[in-house]
Amino acid sequence: MRVLIVGAEGTVGGAAASALRHHEIVKAGRSSGDVRVDLADAASIGAMFEKLGRVDAVVACAGHVHFGPLATMNGEQFMKGLSNKLMGQVNLVLIGKDHVYDHGSFTLTSGVLDRDPIRQGANAATVNAALSGFVLSAAIEMPRGIRINVVSPGLLEASAKKYDGLFPGHEPVSSKRVGLTYVKGVDGALTGKVITVG
Amino acid sequence: MRVLIVGAEGTVGGAAASALRHHEIVKAGRSSGDVRVDLADAASIGAMFEKLGRVDAVVACAGHVHFGPLATMNGEQFMKGLSNKLMGQVNLVLIGKDHVYDHGSFTLTSGVLDRDPIRQGANAATVNAALSGFVLSAAIEMPRGIRINVVSPGLLEASAKKYDGLFPGHEPVSSKRVGLTYVKGVDGALTGKVITVG
Repeated sequence: MRVLIVGAEGTVGGAAASALRHHEIVKAGRSSGDVRVDLADAASIGAMFEKLGRVDAVVACAGHVHFGPLATMNGEQFMKGLSNKLMGQVNLVLIGKDHVYDHGSFTLTSGVLDRDPIRQGANAATVNAALSGFVLSAAIEMPRGIRINVVSPGLLEASAKKYDGLFPGHEPVSSKRVGLTYVKGVDGALTGKVITVG
Repeated sequence: MRVLIVGAEGTVGGAAASALRHHEIVKAGRSSGDVRVDLADAASIGAMFEKLGRVDAVVACAGHVHFGPLATMNGEQFMKGLSNKLMGQVNLVLIGKDHVYDHGSFTLTSGVLDRDPIRQGANAATVNAALSGFVLSAAIEMPRGIRINVVSPGLLEASAKKYDGLFPGHEPVSSKRVGLTYVKGVDGALTGKVITVG
């Protein structure tokens, strides 16, 4: 299969790319990869697919949210996650679905914070939950047997140091286990599901 | 208690107002009510609370989403639900939390489509799920014992004719049953919960 991975140079994207190496991988990123794309810009997504042609599977491991205390969070900060991690992945599907082969798939990425919340994580929890609702509903309308799921990984071992103290009691999950969930999304038969790990 | 209901003139808001009539109700709306507010405008939310002073409970029953086939949905249409129903209620909480008495509450409104999806409902499902993630996470950071929940009502009997054919097999729920869930939110002790009905 020809598998497009957006955000392949990130921690999660790298785990996905490694686990999916039995496929032909096309890496996309904002500043690196085989092809450049800015998920915050719908025109950039369209241009990427025009350049690439059709793929069998799209894997999205990109997107930022706002971390910060609810006490001082404002609407502009909150919009960051909606515009970036949420709308970026939604636009990738809305635009990309016409560039995916019959019976292909989308595998998006959310995260643990809508099922195991932490302080400062309200924006992340909202975006993660939104992605769950999106794939559940989009799955029943996807054309030509195309599937759509979202992987919800816990805190990765490789990111634990960066987030030290922010995730009290969370058990970090290995990149290998996270990678396997993308194999489930790409090579499996699920649709409309949240695939949790960690 | 002094209970602010935003969107009190709508079908769901009316059900909430009727069920909460044992309290002092302040009705807010875009074009009617005791006080005017446009949830899409953060300044308007701030002005409303400055005018009103403190309340014990805030109930939100307002917000629009985009309904339409996924096949032709674009990012601008998708943003409608994020900007309006989602960010409107989020901003009501971010701004309003400083105007709610200790041990007060917020009760937001989502809907059935993230747990029982229909065609054309991807934007609604996303927004509803987002609101679930938001209250789950915001609940652990709310100050001064303030609670926050979201009511997820099914298709109301009073709206069934308007949506005829769009919700195949959905069992409409009475306004009385929907109203009771807002009593659970305001007079109960739950926090961080999705209160489903129908």
